[in-house]
Amino acid sequence: MPEIIETDVAIIGAGPAGLFAAFECGMLKLRTALLDALDEVGGQCSALYPEKPIYDIPAHPAIAAGHLVSQLEQQIAPFAVPRLLGRRVERLAGESGAFVLGTDRGDTVHAKAVLLAAGAGAFGPNRPPLDGLGAFEASGAVQYFVRRREDYRGSRVVIAGGGDSAVDWALSLKDIAAKVYVVHRRPKFRAAPETSAQLAAAAVAGEIELVVPYQLHALHGDSGALATVEVTHLDGTTRHLAADRLLPFFGLSMELGPIADWGLDLERRHIVVAPATCETSVPGVFAIGDVVHYPGKLKLILQGFSEAAMAAHAIHPIVYPNEALHFEYSTSKGVPA
Amino acid sequence: MPEIIETDVAIIGAGPAGLFAAFECGMLKLRTALLDALDEVGGQCSALYPEKPIYDIPAHPAIAAGHLVSQLEQQIAPFAVPRLLGRRVERLAGESGAFVLGTDRGDTVHAKAVLLAAGAGAFGPNRPPLDGLGAFEASGAVQYFVRRREDYRGSRVVIAGGGDSAVDWALSLKDIAAKVYVVHRRPKFRAAPETSAQLAAAAVAGEIELVVPYQLHALHGDSGALATVEVTHLDGTTRHLAADRLLPFFGLSMELGPIADWGLDLERRHIVVAPATCETSVPGVFAIGDVVHYPGKLKLILQGFSEAAMAAHAIHPIVYPNEALHFEYSTSKGVPA
Repeated sequence: MPEIIETDVAIIGAGPAGLFAAFECGMLKLRTALLDALDEVGGQCSALYPEKPIYDIPAHPAIAAGHLVSQLEQQIAPFAVPRLLGRRVERLAGESGAFVLGTDRGDTVHAKAVLLAAGAGAFGPNRPPLDGLGAFEASGAVQYFVRRREDYRGSRVVIAGGGDSAVDWALSLKDIAAKVYVVHRRPKFRAAPETSAQLAAAAVAGEIELVVPYQLHALHGDSGALATVEVTHLDGTTRHLAADRLLPFFGLSMELGPIADWGLDLERRHIVVAPATCETSVPGVFAIGDVVHYPGKLKLILQGFSEAAMAAHAIHPIVYPNEALHFEYSTSKGVPA
Repeated sequence: MPEIIETDVAIIGAGPAGLFAAFECGMLKLRTALLDALDEVGGQCSALYPEKPIYDIPAHPAIAAGHLVSQLEQQIAPFAVPRLLGRRVERLAGESGAFVLGTDRGDTVHAKAVLLAAGAGAFGPNRPPLDGLGAFEASGAVQYFVRRREDYRGSRVVIAGGGDSAVDWALSLKDIAAKVYVVHRRPKFRAAPETSAQLAAAAVAGEIELVVPYQLHALHGDSGALATVEVTHLDGTTRHLAADRLLPFFGLSMELGPIADWGLDLERRHIVVAPATCETSVPGVFAIGDVVHYPGKLKLILQGFSEAAMAAHAIHPIVYPNEALHFEYSTSKGVPA
């Protein structure tokens, strides 16, 4: 059921920066709601590398990304922030003090200010530049994630890429697929040494066919049904790999999505903000974290945290226009019980 | 023995921002040395409130200030940063790429860049504006800290101030002093409710004499020996309190100390920096944390952490002028073993 929410600050993106923004807003008595396209909070940290240690979060000599997220959730717990997850914000209307946001699931959020913490955006896979790709994507012959491993049972699969995802999935699918090719433009893989060694062993054992150094060149088939994947060697040699499925693992790139159409000043697909306030070119719309650009910006989680504090302070007068904000230390005022 | 140190970055101030700057520099292969006037690292967190919980350090729902410091020490341990503690940096000479610093203990530090993380400076107590104060300070009749409680046995003590320090010390010293006056310009005290109530009870019991609402007016005595403290009521009434000791507890204020003479642009006793780099008006000298000013600056520990990262990246080309700095995530490159 679509929800209707009224709040002070709509935070779009529930990664580390968005979560900490909910905390900083809460400390300033600003009500927030968190929205995210993913089904869980934590952004990349939860979705892509929950078990990877991060070493540069201050006062955490090492912290697994997933634990970072759970610590942040615990930190915002006193503020009981409503969450609209698994829905994408598509529409922004209104103006500073009175915004209305609409999601792809029909939810409506009324907010006095908007805080974009969209990280790398709604992550999109890097798509190979192949003619007619769309039809093969639509049929499911080309996919960028393995949603259900079982779907690949008995299939002839071409995996393209040289990183962890390509190698890990090649090793996983070889046990159920009829055939696994791995196409990579270099002989050397960028994956972890141990799994790269397993890949080499599987190739020697004939369980996987390495097609290196080759690049994707064309897809052949009919009505979305894949027949062969054409690949080319640097020397011009061409091969046609008989296949039902193609899994390109060329990494993720940022897709701002509908936000790109909101009239915000952008620079190289990043949102330009004023460094002193994190306000975008649209009054009342603020942005923090990896999605923003300003001089000196570093894509560090810890910088997103600091921006969250600045944005919350800058948003305060929009919500409380007649109240001076007295700066207080958390040691003195504590957190709500 | 005076030390001679040669390093890439001299970090002045070993509070949380300075400690984390040592980490960020270390991650970029910049050698650092930490200097601090205090005998231990941690700045205010260690010296003033080690047991107080802080609630706004990201991913630490609550952390005692002292524990924050020990976590940061653990985080910089891989870089084996030399520390020059208990000495004050007095002289800065040279220029970007070749600075020479001198301390009050005769140490010499050669550094390519200087990073000031001086916090609230070398904390100085707020001194009452009384004629001839210096002579009474020199004799020890006027002190701003109780170094040894036993020194006050049998003394007649005037405590001035209305905060926690004034109230706590009045309650502590009443058991050993011959007489304790508490002079405050308002009838109400700002101390914690429980200790304020204890103060009121001690006053009723005759153990402490409250002199309110009165202000310090003059010190009388000879050759540094205090005879009476003259105080005035708002209505003009004057009293002379017979006393051997005066303890003014009017809080701490920042004293930049010798740094104020280094030619850095200042604004209201804070160092002005470029927000994109944290560089001061003197090339090669950077500043972060509570000591700096730029538009949007908040005096939050977490903002000092973010500034540490920006400054380290901005310092890199001074130390490695011919090397491009490739931005890397800590998850990918890890920390030194």
